[in-house]
Amino acid sequence: MVDPRVSEHARILVEWSTEVKKGDMVVINTTLDGYPLAVETVKWVAKKGGSAIVLLNTQEMSKAYYDSVPDEFLDIFPEHYYALLEKSDVIINIRSPENTKGLSGVPSEKIMKRNKALEKMREVILPKRWSLTVHPNNALAQQANMSLSDYQDFVYGATLLDWEKESENMLRLKAKLDGKKTIRIIGEETDITANIEGRTWVASTAKHNLPSGEVYTSPIETSVEGKVYFDIPFLFNGVEIQGVRLKFEKGEVVEFSAEKGQDMLEKILNIDPGARRLGEIGIGTNRGIKRFTLNMLFDEKIGDTIHLALGNAYPQCGGTNKSAVHVDIVKTMKPGKIIADGEIIQENGKFFWEK
Amino acid sequence: MVDPRVSEHARILVEWSTEVKKGDMVVINTTLDGYPLAVETVKWVAKKGGSAIVLLNTQEMSKAYYDSVPDEFLDIFPEHYYALLEKSDVIINIRSPENTKGLSGVPSEKIMKRNKALEKMREVILPKRWSLTVHPNNALAQQANMSLSDYQDFVYGATLLDWEKESENMLRLKAKLDGKKTIRIIGEETDITANIEGRTWVASTAKHNLPSGEVYTSPIETSVEGKVYFDIPFLFNGVEIQGVRLKFEKGEVVEFSAEKGQDMLEKILNIDPGARRLGEIGIGTNRGIKRFTLNMLFDEKIGDTIHLALGNAYPQCGGTNKSAVHVDIVKTMKPGKIIADGEIIQENGKFFWEK
Repeated sequence: MVDPRVSEHARILVEWSTEVKKGDMVVINTTLDGYPLAVETVKWVAKKGGSAIVLLNTQEMSKAYYDSVPDEFLDIFPEHYYALLEKSDVIINIRSPENTKGLSGVPSEKIMKRNKALEKMREVILPKRWSLTVHPNNALAQQANMSLSDYQDFVYGATLLDWEKESENMLRLKAKLDGKKTIRIIGEETDITANIEGRTWVASTAKHNLPSGEVYTSPIETSVEGKVYFDIPFLFNGVEIQGVRLKFEKGEVVEFSAEKGQDMLEKILNIDPGARRLGEIGIGTNRGIKRFTLNMLFDEKIGDTIHLALGNAYPQCGGTNKSAVHVDIVKTMKPGKIIADGEIIQENGKFFWEK
Repeated sequence: MVDPRVSEHARILVEWSTEVKKGDMVVINTTLDGYPLAVETVKWVAKKGGSAIVLLNTQEMSKAYYDSVPDEFLDIFPEHYYALLEKSDVIINIRSPENTKGLSGVPSEKIMKRNKALEKMREVILPKRWSLTVHPNNALAQQANMSLSDYQDFVYGATLLDWEKESENMLRLKAKLDGKKTIRIIGEETDITANIEGRTWVASTAKHNLPSGEVYTSPIETSVEGKVYFDIPFLFNGVEIQGVRLKFEKGEVVEFSAEKGQDMLEKILNIDPGARRLGEIGIGTNRGIKRFTLNMLFDEKIGDTIHLALGNAYPQCGGTNKSAVHVDIVKTMKPGKIIADGEIIQENGKFFWEK
């Protein structure tokens, strides 16, 4: 018998995240390690009357492709894959890489050229019901410095929630923040303010990301002022960056340091002018996530954290900052305060409705 | 490093069987066990400028589907999958089931209803460059009563041939047989004659089946006279049938027996009227296949055997017999003779050009 948590995970993916119903055409993307969740997802899609096709894509296969493909073929467009997606209603992505470093050694120009050729693929997916989730495996546990069984407990603790209830809270937070003019974040070595007038807050209610649990917007990028200290580390291109301090003036990073990985932080900031400005302010609400694991899908959602992202902003929030990157960095908010137009939104890990 | 035979297998699949060229849209169907061959096939497709998408379909997944799907959803048509195939040039099927009995316990009415709903899928594939091959794994080795390493030697001995040379011989055999009026097969307890006037012989040159190695036609179904003894066993619905003896009059089986599995043989003959007549006469030419393995993809191609199939005939040969089944049964031809219009085609394992 399969771990009942895997089946429950599949149920949430199909019933809540992608709302599969009779006649829906469903694509399930998996790796080899993601197979147990793929099988359970096939079951739930069948129950609902959807029609599932399962695609296999491992980093080993991508590496094999890049090792073999002549450069002049890198921009060949997969018309058949595109036709499949065009006719699909739901796309479910199961992330469970056999090796998180599986594409090491592939020249990044090759990957960038290929990704550019595939841009139309992403465009056809975005308006669909798509969802991204994680199936816990050894490679991800290893990246999180955890054993597999502990990591499974971690993932399911974050994922198998009552998403209706979680969403009510996120929507309450969004309702409070929409229409506000300024947001101020105060905490350890931190006091930063941004103008968010006219911007839209999005509640991430586990439709596109499972687990989810964040409410976010894109600030007016020239308005950010103050300093911030991020206590939670993160990975960029496989390099760990920790203890980041940033100082903003007129929206731009004017001072920066990192306790670890400062060279990489500098590289990020120099990628393009947009990488020195904020593309996102987010508030994590998922209290099932008990610790950071160097995986942003989880880390940015940790309950009672905030995250700021350097780089590209979200058009759906009204954001206009442009960059080739979008780098989230996370900060715990105990102790701390989030204030909007003078109203306390959160204080030392309690939201306004929890007082 | 991967077994170099796996890479050579992929090369033959891509270069010889499906002739992948620049811009070809390629679908690779695999199981989990077929993965090593799928990866090598991805490499060869990339080298040739094709664009590959890999589909995962295991019997476990099919079982999960059948266990979960409500009956009223069995005829839902996978429009997205169909769109994928429509836009594809090449379809490669890697057979490597984790468990050859993986669909045991699924009611056959369900499978039949589903297959009927998917008929259009097969129609869109047939005019394409499609190929079916086997990746040796433990389940297939077990079915063949062999260890995995011996089974690998067996499969690659049958598959990694010079298919250009093999095809020359098959085409020579076809050229000799096309236009003949009668064929007679003489051997142990065997003397059987059929009218083949106006029928076309097909040389199976490893395009659709890899390995291949047979030349076959469909006889005029009312013309078959005589008796035949098949020394090679075969499986039908998982049941082994061995030592079959058939006597034909005016094309119909009028006497039958089997040393093992006679009940199942009787069931086959009673499926429909067409199941009592021959749909195919085939001559095996693959001398790389050294023994039978209860897998018809190989057994019917064993060099110096013939096979007769009860049931449905091939329209491409001019065949007209209709049946819900097509059951191949194989006989060694040492000692034996194949004679066409009085000319000796093969005698005791030597073809006419080998004398």
